[in-house]
Amino acid sequence: MDFLEELKTLKEQVLFRERFTIDPEEYDNIVISGMGGSGIVGNIFSELYTKKPVIVVSDYDIPEFANDKTLFIGISYSGNTEETLSTLKQAEEAGCHIVGITSGGKLSQANHRIIKIPKGLQPRSSLGYMLMPLINSLLPVSDEERISTSQLLAKIDSDNAQLKTLAEEIGSKQQIPVVLGFSPFKWVAYRWKTQFNENSKILAFSNFFPELNHNETMPYKGTYRKDIFRFIVIGNPDNVRIKKRIEITGNITGTGFTYLPDEGQSTFEKLFALIHKGDYLTYHLAHYLNVDPTDVSLIEELKKKLGS
Amino acid sequence: MDFLEELKTLKEQVLFRERFTIDPEEYDNIVISGMGGSGIVGNIFSELYTKKPVIVVSDYDIPEFANDKTLFIGISYSGNTEETLSTLKQAEEAGCHIVGITSGGKLSQANHRIIKIPKGLQPRSSLGYMLMPLINSLLPVSDEERISTSQLLAKIDSDNAQLKTLAEEIGSKQQIPVVLGFSPFKWVAYRWKTQFNENSKILAFSNFFPELNHNETMPYKGTYRKDIFRFIVIGNPDNVRIKKRIEITGNITGTGFTYLPDEGQSTFEKLFALIHKGDYLTYHLAHYLNVDPTDVSLIEELKKKLGS
Repeated sequence: MDFLEELKTLKEQVLFRERFTIDPEEYDNIVISGMGGSGIVGNIFSELYTKKPVIVVSDYDIPEFANDKTLFIGISYSGNTEETLSTLKQAEEAGCHIVGITSGGKLSQANHRIIKIPKGLQPRSSLGYMLMPLINSLLPVSDEERISTSQLLAKIDSDNAQLKTLAEEIGSKQQIPVVLGFSPFKWVAYRWKTQFNENSKILAFSNFFPELNHNETMPYKGTYRKDIFRFIVIGNPDNVRIKKRIEITGNITGTGFTYLPDEGQSTFEKLFALIHKGDYLTYHLAHYLNVDPTDVSLIEELKKKLGS
Repeated sequence: MDFLEELKTLKEQVLFRERFTIDPEEYDNIVISGMGGSGIVGNIFSELYTKKPVIVVSDYDIPEFANDKTLFIGISYSGNTEETLSTLKQAEEAGCHIVGITSGGKLSQANHRIIKIPKGLQPRSSLGYMLMPLINSLLPVSDEERISTSQLLAKIDSDNAQLKTLAEEIGSKQQIPVVLGFSPFKWVAYRWKTQFNENSKILAFSNFFPELNHNETMPYKGTYRKDIFRFIVIGNPDNVRIKKRIEITGNITGTGFTYLPDEGQSTFEKLFALIHKGDYLTYHLAHYLNVDPTDVSLIEELKKKLGS
């Protein structure tokens, strides 16, 4: 499957029905473990679901508090990510309730509730398959919302010329993107950053309002090298204070933000539409720069040298 | 007080004794609210203390789960940070156990357990005063460790020539720092990033191992603009897998990492020594670039225009 075909599966991914069941009385907190694209799933979920404390681990060790009142969710597309398997072992020792989300590997063979997702995609192209089981289980959305979201994604599949134009601007000027988000899409900004890294093979960074107004805003005015950065604000804020912060920050620093509006009505629709726009922008940029968006051979080489 | 004098108070800050008392049976989780330098205090603490779930909020709203089994800690140096006051109000409505850490303002007048810290510093220069009450209360360190840490900080005060040299290299080449950390100092890397932003007025970014090996590593080899970035690895990892990851990442990408070693024996000593090195590096860079490290007038202008 080529990368464009992979991207186009997102509209099917939001219809994915798999879920797990656990009585909310049985756990006090949730630990989600995952690296890269899998960790992003946990982080995006933690912005949407705040009924219980959600701690996302992108590392080797689980927190000390994890016990038999903890719901542990290990996410790894390959099922062989060494950090995630390390946390799984610790979660077993701590007696957590365990759920795995994976397409195969060692995680799929673990003696726990395992949600199998389709094989054959790049891990970062399976965000919907990895996220939907969390949403289906803990924060369900209606059929109507899934279908309207799927249609919105299909619309982006068929018309993303504006993102191509932006990609060409970034590429031709050799710009470094700084993607700026805000709640509940802070981690979508990070997702965009990582898609620039992996698909387009360029450095990129992310931050969010209002936090960046307390530090990063300072060099937005009059620092060296600012002209090589492209500041992209994703989404339209509902919070009027955030809206005002963005406008004032642009005005007083003379920073010409590029605005990438969200689309759709609900948070669910907006979330996936924004994610998909980042997919296309970074795909078009890879194409413009003549690099293979699927190539992550350097990461594979690293894993091999690590002996894992 | 000039900025250098402010920095030199850190060795006194680690001796700060204030604390609050709360029976661990009375709360299930902790929410720490703070922006910028105050939020960093919460985040650094959340890496050290994992006996209960700690959620750090750098935004307007507290999570839905917060209730009478939640310990809410609001941190604001001025006591007037609008986001933090917004979360304080919500925490009151949710019936949380509330502690405030501040030097004055509205937070100091709230009818809760308030820990007053000395006035007259930049908020980012009072990290020790804001962090120590959390450590004293929930993760106490011995007198010996405080004193040895204080001595270590005094040593850095009297000899930081190497950091001055590095600052001049960064400044003369107009480099953009990317500060790379790892557990338990991921958020120290973010602290450095923000100190570059506020003190030196330059753009800077941070990331951490092993997460960055799953995405950001890709453009470390052969991308455009890489030569303007300065990749700084802070600290010496105890975890052998992390150690190996750093070495291999440097080797296979041809990235010449600048290594800033930690100093001291305990996590507490290393933590403050690393923080202090970042303070001096960014101070020296401000001096080299001929900018005032204390000036945050842009952030003040923003607050004024926001009408807060």
